[in-house]
Amino acid sequence: MSERPDQPPITSPRSERVKKVAALTGRSARRRQERFRVEGPLAVHSLLEHRPELAREVFLTERAASDHPELAQLACAAGTPVRRVDEQILRAMLRDQSTGAESTSADGASVTPQGAVAVAALPAEDPARATEAVRALPTSGPLTVLVLHEVRDPGNVGTLIRTADASGADLVLLTRTCADPYSPKAVRAAVGSLFHLPVIAGAEIEDLLAELSTAGIAAAATSGYAAEELFTAELPDRLAWILGNEARGLDEKTLAAAPLAVRIPLAGRAESLNVHTAATVCLFETLRRRRASA
Amino acid sequence: MSERPDQPPITSPRSERVKKVAALTGRSARRRQERFRVEGPLAVHSLLEHRPELAREVFLTERAASDHPELAQLACAAGTPVRRVDEQILRAMLRDQSTGAESTSADGASVTPQGAVAVAALPAEDPARATEAVRALPTSGPLTVLVLHEVRDPGNVGTLIRTADASGADLVLLTRTCADPYSPKAVRAAVGSLFHLPVIAGAEIEDLLAELSTAGIAAAATSGYAAEELFTAELPDRLAWILGNEARGLDEKTLAAAPLAVRIPLAGRAESLNVHTAATVCLFETLRRRRASA
Repeated sequence: MSERPDQPPITSPRSERVKKVAALTGRSARRRQERFRVEGPLAVHSLLEHRPELAREVFLTERAASDHPELAQLACAAGTPVRRVDEQILRAMLRDQSTGAESTSADGASVTPQGAVAVAALPAEDPARATEAVRALPTSGPLTVLVLHEVRDPGNVGTLIRTADASGADLVLLTRTCADPYSPKAVRAAVGSLFHLPVIAGAEIEDLLAELSTAGIAAAATSGYAAEELFTAELPDRLAWILGNEARGLDEKTLAAAPLAVRIPLAGRAESLNVHTAATVCLFETLRRRRASA
Repeated sequence: MSERPDQPPITSPRSERVKKVAALTGRSARRRQERFRVEGPLAVHSLLEHRPELAREVFLTERAASDHPELAQLACAAGTPVRRVDEQILRAMLRDQSTGAESTSADGASVTPQGAVAVAALPAEDPARATEAVRALPTSGPLTVLVLHEVRDPGNVGTLIRTADASGADLVLLTRTCADPYSPKAVRAAVGSLFHLPVIAGAEIEDLLAELSTAGIAAAATSGYAAEELFTAELPDRLAWILGNEARGLDEKTLAAAPLAVRIPLAGRAESLNVHTAATVCLFETLRRRRASA
């Protein structure tokens, strides 16, 4: 473990360093510092194991360091400094600076970082990165991409990344108008999956559709009005599922531009599915078919 | 529309009647008043259309009454009194009385009832109701039941009810240790589905398993350690999916007692699925097979 001797231990929850980590709750501070915050042993583990080049600093309580010895080992291998801090310091690193309130999860419960917080380098917001990511995919063979367009809730964005990962998706692309996948709420909801597969934000939907088409990846939208039903539709081997806004779904223009549209069958009286449920059904049906044909 | 002439119009957000509706945010007040609150035109519509016998009172703003004329018609047909109220009164009906804060949704955004709130009769909390509900199911032919055991987050409970409805489930059973499906957060997340199919809370898991077995309904648990994979497992026609706690999943005893256990295939690096994602995959795979064999 590398303890930088030039840095004094953090003893006050009001120290400048603690405040800088706490400030990462806000998007403008993330951009200014070019950093984002990762909370909890599972997510910190995923960062250090799968994206060590992004890790900048790891903060562990005595207890977390002893419960999760692999974190310090991974950090050491990555050349990332690890600091011991008190539980009180770690909690202050998560405190919302505008309100002084502690972070809360989707259900309003107080969030605890369970003894582990990391600070990581924020990937550059450059629309060209989405293009590069699509071009970096294998040029033949089956693959699955998830495209999120105007998904505004950070918890949804994080959960969608986690589900994309679980279903074996190769890439997640977010358009410019989505919630930031590097906000603490999104990072928490993704439970490490943010580091398991490429997740690229900031693209324009028109550019994405053009790039996917060039790469021979069929963009598929879900729509309650589509003629074809998901379970009986032919699904191309190279497929990008496009999911839209929580309240409005996909806009007309994007729907019209997607070469494929399918309807998820609804058997009861529910009028619609939420965006995460719809994505889950599509992604796991894709996985099921891939396994069946393998 | 029936306006009771004996009741004066509600003009103050601090009136006793407004406070009584606002108090329904709390479980003890729901039990004391034997009422729960339904918010938003969609959910109020579902209540009045599918469970009119539960509706006790509907509050509409001028605007909601004009945007959704069917609400007053349905209320009239159900014999439920409708009252016009100002937006300000309606918002006060949703205010948390302990903190004075307005209701917030899962992502922390302020919730607006979009001009419509209803008060409904709270179904009795009697463990015998779950037994009756299972016995009331058709004694032959395919059917799907969703059992939630120790699911603690009200938003999850509501979303699970919505997804069960969308997948054509016949019944949702919640054990005593689940979040209350009649809490405002759960009712909001269910978006009307609470009134589309029978939803029964308060049972003990052991009693449920015994009752399901007697009814010839196979209880199926999901487990990361199960030998059989969901997509290739044989699924009985009469099936009850049992989903467990958000953090811990199902306890060992319940897992052992369920006659069927399947593993949801995970293709990426995600270690697990959240409870709602797991339920979605199981319920829609059941729907897919039912459609394929129909």
